[in-house]
Amino acid sequence: MAEAAKKMTTADMPERAIAYFQDLQNRICARFESLDGVGRFEKTPWQKEPDSLMQGGGEMRVMKGDVFEKVGVNFSHVHGRFSDEFAPSIPGASKENPQFWASGVSLVAHMRSPLVPAVHMNVRRIVTTKAWFGGGADLTPYFPFEEDTQSFHTHLKAACDSYRPDAYAEYKAWCDRYFFLPHRNEPRGVGGIFFDNLESGSEEADFAFVQAVGDAFLTAYADIVARRKDLPWTPEQREHQLVRRGRYVEFNLLYDRGTLFGLKTNGNTEAILMSMPPEVKWP
Amino acid sequence: MAEAAKKMTTADMPERAIAYFQDLQNRICARFESLDGVGRFEKTPWQKEPDSLMQGGGEMRVMKGDVFEKVGVNFSHVHGRFSDEFAPSIPGASKENPQFWASGVSLVAHMRSPLVPAVHMNVRRIVTTKAWFGGGADLTPYFPFEEDTQSFHTHLKAACDSYRPDAYAEYKAWCDRYFFLPHRNEPRGVGGIFFDNLESGSEEADFAFVQAVGDAFLTAYADIVARRKDLPWTPEQREHQLVRRGRYVEFNLLYDRGTLFGLKTNGNTEAILMSMPPEVKWP
Repeated sequence: MAEAAKKMTTADMPERAIAYFQDLQNRICARFESLDGVGRFEKTPWQKEPDSLMQGGGEMRVMKGDVFEKVGVNFSHVHGRFSDEFAPSIPGASKENPQFWASGVSLVAHMRSPLVPAVHMNVRRIVTTKAWFGGGADLTPYFPFEEDTQSFHTHLKAACDSYRPDAYAEYKAWCDRYFFLPHRNEPRGVGGIFFDNLESGSEEADFAFVQAVGDAFLTAYADIVARRKDLPWTPEQREHQLVRRGRYVEFNLLYDRGTLFGLKTNGNTEAILMSMPPEVKWP
Repeated sequence: MAEAAKKMTTADMPERAIAYFQDLQNRICARFESLDGVGRFEKTPWQKEPDSLMQGGGEMRVMKGDVFEKVGVNFSHVHGRFSDEFAPSIPGASKENPQFWASGVSLVAHMRSPLVPAVHMNVRRIVTTKAWFGGGADLTPYFPFEEDTQSFHTHLKAACDSYRPDAYAEYKAWCDRYFFLPHRNEPRGVGGIFFDNLESGSEEADFAFVQAVGDAFLTAYADIVARRKDLPWTPEQREHQLVRRGRYVEFNLLYDRGTLFGLKTNGNTEAILMSMPPEVKWP
């Protein structure tokens, strides 16, 4: 009976996940436009050329505004086969059965003011012979305000607590481990949560958690932007921001699994590298 | 007899290679300071903390001048053991015998004028249970002048021709293959030469070739800088340069073996990432 219920939910899960991801993209973009006041998202639908490995497409949305110097909010929905190189490293996939289906929303925001943190968020569903959700959100302030770090974590913790008691501690630690630059011996920012391969046994619970994370991110980050966007800042602070953005580039190109995976599997380069900061310095 | 001669040369080769690399570093820095007219190289000797994998040190030299926006010319001389992960991929090394010795000069120049090409050069000697030289030089103009591309290749070809008839064609092709960005389907620049694992059978000939390459690079690039440094340029050209520099970053962090190898084997991060452009845009 429980097994039957699980299978029933699974049947329409792809459509429900996609509907949530698209709705989240819409709500994020609307809220960010409202916070910016001037910028508008430019929408670029894209479709992979039918090739042997991946098909499908998505919609990139980029806003270059007054508050948001460059923010990308991407929805994608692709399916195909993992390369022989990657298949063995993906749960439920193998060289013999490299099929996959994936959908999600990815977001990176680089802000004009050095006092407004950069942020990254991703929620995704992956299906191979297994099926799971993953995601996370993490904050990268260049001049950290303790209040912002606290409120960001508090919202994410509430989403985690609704899922299971240990989730926040576990996913916070996972985030700290993941967003770390070994060659600098530095964390990327002040953390957040990171999770993958959710398998609580209830897809409904997993999906509800992923929705809670997406929603919590939006509330938490919008509050921070509203709180900091009109603070005056100095050219020296801006310079510090541009230099620290280099760490963001280093992390994404050297270590980020999503970036490397996308670039090396013939993904949409423009969509993947939308995470690059608009302006960076290595002095 | 030939075998004996080879062994005799090998005995003092480390010192001779190091002497050449340090002399080349000196000559390059002197010539670049003279071309710049204003900037001076800041010298930073460094020494690895004695740890289990690598020891030794080197000298970073960085100039931030009027013509040279940021140029790094590094000498290094290190020895130790390759990690279990890397050892099997290095000729003559293995998990069982991961010892290595390495010395060389690496150079990356990012120029203030968008009309003066960026350039990269490296000459190196590596010793495991085998011993060999490697190196190369390649040019990255943002507004290519055919005359510069031609003269750069002509000097390198002369160095190659003195080594063996097929060397230029082979090492030019190797360079084109190596400095290519698959995710952009673009070459990094207008090429040059790239070579590794030289084993002509005569270490003397290999060493003479590496010296010819280092010297040819200096003549060729100094000529280009002298020819282009005083040309007027526009803000639009500068913008194009900053955007194209992003490709340099992408290549070095995603694909460059030296960069990845250095960062992932506990190398000197500051020295390795000196190749990063001083200012970059991803619009």
